[in-house]
This record gives sequence, structure tokens and C-alpha cells, in this order.
Amino acid sequence: MENALQNKLELACKIAKSFFDRGMGSGTTGNLSFMHKGILFITAGGTCFGFLTPSDFSAVPYEDKADSSLLADPEVAALLKKKPSKELTLHKTVYDRLMRDGFTEGAVIHTHATYSVLWSCVPGLDPDNCVPDPTPYLRMKMGNCGLIPYEKPGSPALFEAFAERCGDKYGWILKRHGLVTGGKDLMEAFGRCEELEETCKVAWMLRSAGITV
Amino acid sequence: MENALQNKLELACKIAKSFFDRGMGSGTTGNLSFMHKGILFITAGGTCFGFLTPSDFSAVPYEDKADSSLLADPEVAALLKKKPSKELTLHKTVYDRLMRDGFTEGAVIHTHATYSVLWSCVPGLDPDNCVPDPTPYLRMKMGNCGLIPYEKPGSPALFEAFAERCGDKYGWILKRHGLVTGGKDLMEAFGRCEELEETCKVAWMLRSAGITV
Amino acid sequence: MENALQNKLELACKIAKSFFDRGMGSGTTGNLSFMHKGILFITAGGTCFGFLTPSDFSAVPYEDKADSSLLADPEVAALLKKKPSKELTLHKTVYDRLMRDGFTEGAVIHTHATYSVLWSCVPGLDPDNCVPDPTPYLRMKMGNCGLIPYEKPGSPALFEAFAERCGDKYGWILKRHGLVTGGKDLMEAFGRCEELEETCKVAWMLRSAGITV
Amino acid sequence: MENALQNKLELACKIAKSFFDRGMGSGTTGNLSFMHKGILFITAGGTCFGFLTPSDFSAVPYEDKADSSLLADPEVAALLKKKPSKELTLHKTVYDRLMRDGFTEGAVIHTHATYSVLWSCVPGLDPDNCVPDPTPYLRMKMGNCGLIPYEKPGSPALFEAFAERCGDKYGWILKRHGLVTGGKDLMEAFGRCEELEETCKVAWMLRSAGITV
Repeated sequence: MENALQNKLELACKIAKSFFDRGMGSGTTGNLSFMHKGILFITAGGTCFGFLTPSDFSAVPYEDKADSSLLADPEVAALLKKKPSKELTLHKTVYDRLMRDGFTEGAVIHTHATYSVLWSCVPGLDPDNCVPDPTPYLRMKMGNCGLIPYEKPGSPALFEAFAERCGDKYGWILKRHGLVTGGKDLMEAFGRCEELEETCKVAWMLRSAGITV
Repeated sequence: MENALQNKLELACKIAKSFFDRGMGSGTTGNLSFMHKGILFITAGGTCFGFLTPSDFSAVPYEDKADSSLLADPEVAALLKKKPSKELTLHKTVYDRLMRDGFTEGAVIHTHATYSVLWSCVPGLDPDNCVPDPTPYLRMKMGNCGLIPYEKPGSPALFEAFAERCGDKYGWILKRHGLVTGGKDLMEAFGRCEELEETCKVAWMLRSAGITV
Repeated sequence: MENALQNKLELACKIAKSFFDRGMGSGTTGNLSFMHKGILFITAGGTCFGFLTPSDFSAVPYEDKADSSLLADPEVAALLKKKPSKELTLHKTVYDRLMRDGFTEGAVIHTHATYSVLWSCVPGLDPDNCVPDPTPYLRMKMGNCGLIPYEKPGSPALFEAFAERCGDKYGWILKRHGLVTGGKDLMEAFGRCEELEETCKVAWMLRSAGITV
Repeated sequence: MENALQNKLELACKIAKSFFDRGMGSGTTGNLSFMHKGILFITAGGTCFGFLTPSDFSAVPYEDKADSSLLADPEVAALLKKKPSKELTLHKTVYDRLMRDGFTEGAVIHTHATYSVLWSCVPGLDPDNCVPDPTPYLRMKMGNCGLIPYEKPGSPALFEAFAERCGDKYGWILKRHGLVTGGKDLMEAFGRCEELEETCKVAWMLRSAGITV
């Protein structure tokens, strides 16, 4: 396997493990992906962020853009046979959105981080800008965060709701479900994910204490 | 020792350590087991999830089903002499229940995870369905969670209360004590354990904030 | 260095690191010790639970009981020159208490665990039995927990207050300071420490939610 | 590279990773530095505390004090080309303050630790002594903590506000942003950082429970 791809797979595993270890993705929930030479590498169904290895990814050609010599690589060919996460459609919608913005690669992370889930349950949120600014970083790194109404995880109804409201954002909270972020590469999607969860945590705790900033 | 058994013992240690490291099982509380060829491998008494190795397991033949060549393996024979966790009877009750469902192997996890303990103390829970659905995953992965009334840990009264109310569920909270999950293998029992604790955490925090979903 | 001592030093480091990693002892606070052949091995002043190695211990002969051949071991001799934690006197008081009970070795752990500190600030605690029983384990493993009134850390006033109220217990909370546990060996002191902090956590959170059990 | 410098870079990485792993600095926020022979070694822009290596540092000569033979070291020369964290000016202000106190080296840590951020939002804090004393350690280790009013991260306005209020302290909370500590070496800055965050955590939770000590 070419080095650049190997490095991305290893970074993806390292990021996933860091979420698991720090309580930002437990059990077999959560999935992440990156695009490399027209192939979407996404965690396979039933995998666990805590125990992920490069062989736990599924390779999915994106439209007609897949690099043919990469598809012929025997290690990549093995990943083509793996069943992707059931949230694949959701990831694809984010890549469509990233492509519209001129990106040719990119990365997407979805995890059931506790405070993003909690914040999604706060009544009266603005669906176009659902996270406040207790600290300025989330806005600096990601802009507005969208709120997607509740639909069953992995269902066509969820994918439709997400596609409709995805807009030109880089991050969303799925109500009673989890967060999604996209970026130009794994580190950018990761940094947004971290900032979104931390901001929801600070916002939740300030709200509990009755403090406004 | 045969590879398949070695791998299961190592996975069990990895799961146990992940609970310990993430605050889901402290000190020498918590025990877990899996069935392999008619032998129940359960953590020995006084072991700690954080420091577990394959030699910390006790081997207990299940009824008359134990594979005789496995019993003769010298490494397994050494485990036959270890004293099992004092919650062994509770594990056996879950295996009886899994067998009724047609499973021939399976796994059971018991840990004193904080939010499951806290949730068990909420007044007025339905003993047949004691955890609500702030997110949909627990129901998707495990179905209803049972609530077992308080009895002294490791006591015949607890084992009796558990056997009476075990029913056809895959997960239970023992009041003021901890959680128990069963599944077809270690990863399934682990995934249910994770989802049960995370759901109790979200439910507890929403309740504290006075938010209903 | 003899194997038994080496193993104890390594276990002590492993326990200390596990406290640090799980948020039960930050920075350079916290100290722990064990007695081996009449020599008290205690973390040196200014060490950090997260980065501890066997050479970070100070060796202190206990009364006239120190094994002379062990004192002559060059590695032990090096530890005799290290400055012990400023809470040494507090550790010695616990060993005196363990010796009264017939123990000849033993271990003591002191750490600034968050929930023990928080619980020590709850008004109206019984100084002879300051932690309630939301779960039964602490009582099963340690019995009553004492509460020591606030005195400056490392001061003669603290040591005096502790010696006066130490009694026949195995665990104490120093008000606005941290916890102390003793046991027949490192694992017993560790298990009590874990259970004390977890019990204070559950008690604190139930109190915040207005739930009594 | 000389050993003493290599050791400091490695300790800095170990400290950074420990913050990340324990939830005291997420994503690519946070930066830390130390002075060695007149050169300030500071984390480069966009680096992550969780994945830091010695090559992620930027070397910045401090005034005219840089050791010329160290500047000529090829590994150091490579670090001279790296772009420093955008909070470099803030670090320099702390070194100016440390130099006034007679230190010739020193270290500075800045991280967005959750409870320091939360505490900075509590109304009515004294800007010259913004953290109370639920436990005595912060005062013993660091003295008063300053509160810097909110200005945009990395902006000249923030640097100016910080320089004006820096005074003779060793630690500050930047409102709605994070903490900053300085010390004679990495371990001292680290210990103050830990104590500041832990004290803010205890203070925050006591405040939430309505308990005063």
C-alpha cells in the first residue's frame, strides 16, 4: 500500500482511539472516513473506535473518481470487500458538500460524544446556529453548527433530513444522536469535532449553573 | 493453549482494561466471563480490571458440556484451580438464559459503572424497563433493561433475586450495585455494557437539567 | 535489588500512574508508601504520580526494624539519601496503627482525589463515620471512614490531629485536602482508595440530585 | 542535539500528552514553551497536545541571549524555520516577567482546561485574586491567580491586556479562553497548571452545590 494512504489510515486509527480513550465515543458507535484519490475509506460496520486497525476500514469508490491503480492494490482490494458503516450515506453527503466547496479530498467524523448529545436536547435551539459562543474557538474553526432533527440512526429518513439541512456548514449535531464534522483533512475534521464537543460541554455546564456570558 | 481461547482471554483483558482506564470499573470490583467449548472462563476473585492478564482467569466447567481435551490442556488445568469471582452464580444464571435462547457460547460482563449505579437510585423506575430512551441505541442493541432490587453483593439472596427477574433480557442494573450484560460474544456484551452506561449518563444529566426528550 | 522489593516498587508506580491517568491525583500532590522488611519506601518529595519510577522513592528505616542486609544493598542505600514526602509523619502514624493490629508490613496511600475532597466539605458529617453507604462496598472493604479537621498540609498540627483521630480505622478524609487509606499490602490500600473515592462520587452526585437511598 | 535540550523537549511532549489524555487540552488548542540557553522552544502553530513530538516545536531566539553554538546545531536550525504558536507574544510576556524575577530559563503553559474556562465566567471575580481557596495548594504553589478580560485569542488586544495585568503573578485565567502558568522549569509550570485546574474544578462544584468552606 502506498505510504500516504498507510499514514492516513494510521492517523485515522489514532484519532479514533483518542476519542474512545477520552470518553468521546464508546462501544461500537461512531464512524469516520477520509477521501484519498477518489476512494472513500470509512470504518467498517460494527467496528470499535477503541480497537481500530487499518484493516477495519471499508473502501468505497466515490462516483467515478477512484484511482484505478489504487483500486488494483491487493490491500485496497481487500478493503473493497468490507461492509461500510451503515452511516455511509451521511458521509457521502458531507463529501458532496466538500466537493462543492472545491475540496478534492477531505475527511468526515461522526461520534456520539456525550455533551453534543446533551446539548441537542436543549429546548429552543436555532437549527441554523445551534451552539452558542461561551468561548470563541468553535466559530473561528468551524462557523455555525447545524441541528438535524431526530430520525432513526442509519435510516433513509435521517439521510434525507441531513441532505436537506446540510447547507454550507462544516459541522452538525444530530438530535439525540451525535455530532458530524467535515474538513479538508483528518486533522481539520478532528479539531472541529474536539472543539464542538468541548464547546457543548462548557455551554451545558454554564447553563446548569445559570451563568450567561 | 489453542489460539481461539488465547485470543478470547486477551480480548477480555483488553476490554477490562478499557473499562478501568475510562472510569467504568475501579479497584477490584467488576468481573467478566466468556464461555468457550463448555468451559466458563471468569475473572478470579480479587482481580483488578486495570491489571488483568490471562492467568487471572478461573476456568469452571459448565454443567457436563466441558470439552475434555481442553480440560486436559496444562494451562487450562492451572486455571481450573483458581478461585472464581464471588459473583459466579450470577454469571451462570445469564448463561442459562443465553442457552435457552439457543446460544452455545456467549459472554457476561458485570461492572460497577457510576451512572448505572446512580440511575438505579432514581425513584419510581419500572423494573421491567428501567432505562429511558434519550438516544435510541440501547433499545436497538439490547432491548429493555431490567432492574434487580438491592441484595448484598455475592449473597444467595442476590442470586435468587436475579434468577427470578432475569427473564429474557440481555441487560440488568442491580440496584445500588452495578450493571450486568450478556451477549453472544465478548464484543456484544461489551457493546451493550457501553451503551447501557452511556445511556444512563445521558439520562442522569438530562434529569438533573430538568429536560425531557 | 531483591525481586520482591523490585516488584513492589513497580506495582507502586503502576498504581500511582493509574490514579494520575484517571484524574485521581494530579500534579505533584499525592504520595504513597509500603513497608518491606522494616523499611518504609515512600515517594520522594516533589514527585508526580504520573511519571513515577522506582528511583523516585525514598527509603526510611522504621523504628529499629530495618533488615540490615537490605540496608546494605547499594540500590536501597541510594534511596536512603532521597528526601521523603513531607507527609511522612502521617504515613508513619498509619503504620503504627497497622502494627497495633498485628500487621508486619502494609501500605499507605494519600491522594487529593476530587470527590473525597468535595465530600469533606459537606456540612454536618459524623467525624467517626463520614461517608454514607449509597453502595455497600466501602463498608465491606474498609469499614467506617474518619474525618480529620483541616490543618495545613505537612504541618505538625495536621500530624497531631491525624494521630489523635486515627483510631482503629483503615481510611480517612482530611478535610479540604484529600484521602488516606492503609492496608496489609499495596493492593488492599489501593482497593480501599478506589472504593472511597467512588463512594464519595456517588454520594456527591446523589446529594446534588436530591436523592436518598 | 545536546542531551539536556532533548530531555526537555521530551518532557514537554509527555506533559502535553498527559493534558490531552486527561481532558485538559483538546484538539489543536493549547501551547507550551520552555527557555533553554536563550532560545524559546514553543509548540508550532496547529500542533495537537495529544500527538506532539520534538519536531513539532518552533525555536525562537529570546532577545539577544541565544547561545550561538546551539543556534548552529542542525536540528535546532530546523526548528528555527517552524512557525511558532500564534500565542507566542503571550509567552514572551511571561518570560519577561520571569526574567524580572531573576530566572534565566523557565517554562510557560497555556491550555483551554475546562474548569478554568468555566470559573472565568463566574460573575464578580476579583481580577487580582480570581480563584478561591477550597484547598490550600494553589496558594502554596502559585500565589494569587490573575483574571485577564476577554479579548480575541491571538490578537494584539489580548497581548496588550495580558501585558498590562500580568504583574508579579505566576498564573492567570484568560476569560472565556483558558489558563496560563509560568515557572522556573517545565515541572513547576506543569504543577501550577494542574493545581489551578483542579482548584477551579473543586470551586466550581462546591459553588454548584451551594457549599462554602
